Amino acid sequence: MGLVRLDVSYDGTDFHGFARQPGLRTVQGTLEEVLTRLLSTPIEVHGSGRTDAGVHARAQVVHFAQESGPPPDRYPKVLARMLPRDIVVVSGCEAPPGFHARFSAVRKTYRYTLQRATVEDVFTRRYAWHVPESLDLVRMSDAAKHLIGKHDFTSFCAAATPTENKIRTIFDLYLQERGSYLDFICTGSGFLQNMVRIIAGTLVDVGLGKMTPEDVLVSLHARDRRSAGRTAPPSGLTLWSVEYSE
Amino acid sequence: MGLVRLDVSYDGTDFHGFARQPGLRTVQGTLEEVLTRLLSTPIEVHGSGRTDAGVHARAQVVHFAQESGPPPDRYPKVLARMLPRDIVVVSGCEAPPGFHARFSAVRKTYRYTLQRATVEDVFTRRYAWHVPESLDLVRMSDAAKHLIGKHDFTSFCAAATPTENKIRTIFDLYLQERGSYLDFICTGSGFLQNMVRIIAGTLVDVGLGKMTPEDVLVSLHARDRRSAGRTAPPSGLTLWSVEYSE
Repeated sequence: MGLVRLDVSYDGTDFHGFARQPGLRTVQGTLEEVLTRLLSTPIEVHGSGRTDAGVHARAQVVHFAQESGPPPDRYPKVLARMLPRDIVVVSGCEAPPGFHARFSAVRKTYRYTLQRATVEDVFTRRYAWHVPESLDLVRMSDAAKHLIGKHDFTSFCAAATPTENKIRTIFDLYLQERGSYLDFICTGSGFLQNMVRIIAGTLVDVGLGKMTPEDVLVSLHARDRRSAGRTAPPSGLTLWSVEYSE
Repeated sequence: MGLVRLDVSYDGTDFHGFARQPGLRTVQGTLEEVLTRLLSTPIEVHGSGRTDAGVHARAQVVHFAQESGPPPDRYPKVLARMLPRDIVVVSGCEAPPGFHARFSAVRKTYRYTLQRATVEDVFTRRYAWHVPESLDLVRMSDAAKHLIGKHDFTSFCAAATPTENKIRTIFDLYLQERGSYLDFICTGSGFLQNMVRIIAGTLVDVGLGKMTPEDVLVSLHARDRRSAGRTAPPSGLTLWSVEYSE
């Protein structure tokens, strides 16, 4: 019996999110179905966290237990033949005893991407939010700084979020320009439902002049979803990396 | 009555090619349907050339005649609301009298893209051919040089091509590395059916050591499709630009 860790990338466009749901095409469901077939025994896959429908992953981390099976580093090749083309296993290794993709994670980084040119680029429309209006990047950076740190993020998660404890720590949040693209890079201890999308939508609202950087600070203290900006569309969001302690 | 020129980009993945075909989703058919609806009169669209099913365009050029309609430079905005998301009108302008998207074109450039990393990148799988094997770029460059110039390209087009005259001029053909991606940039007077894909497939066969640069020269003289390399998949191919004389 061993624990296998897989680093998985996926194009979330055609999935109903990561989490298994009966009758729907999901990333977890697809991985479990393929692994169950490969190993001829029911396999349950645990991810580092859920991603919403339409959200992508460059390196989602999952683990599962196997009695016997291929050497873990063979999984990328073995599964490439069995998985649909919108999921790719990037690497596989044996996980240390007690490893859990979700509970052992210490930091997660998400990237949210805007495309800023006047006309939408047809080749990145699945992976970016097209915002052709002019944006004030200085004010957006100022607003982002208010969100860094340990805060109650009630205003920055879906109103229906069942999670009791809404205190999370954002270690870093900054803007990065790449030609006509603008990324928000956000690293934190963990994230609430829709949290990065609401942060991205709020930063865009600040960039458009609909909110001020100070409004973001006020919103953080208000603990009321209605005080923050809009929820950015899922297409621009990518789970970039998950870090574990040594 | 005026002639309108539109520069159009599209993600070819979900189209049965550019050319209109009854009952199938094509780029020309989609543009004609939307323009006919907008202008309330049957519109026929002429492209600079066909692209195969699955082939993309960064800037395909089309023209059509209109009695009356929006100012040509308004077309990108007007059509953005009517077109599916995998076609984008990048620019619109009035074309000079006698302009024809196909017959007035003097040069065309295609880009063929390979992804060379061991594992396929899920975010470029629609736009690149994944070739993880090691490639000899020096020999590929040598082979490419043999194809530059005015030649009979019978060996480098689909065997069933009905076109009588298979003489074309390649002005330039070179390799360009971008991180783990390799592009073939090919500029010519015009291209036969599958010609760029057969050139790309042949260059890969040379890079893998299945053919030598000299075999490419021999193949050019043989005027026999079977003497050249394989046809590369359509996903890696993008019509990059079309040039017109002043």
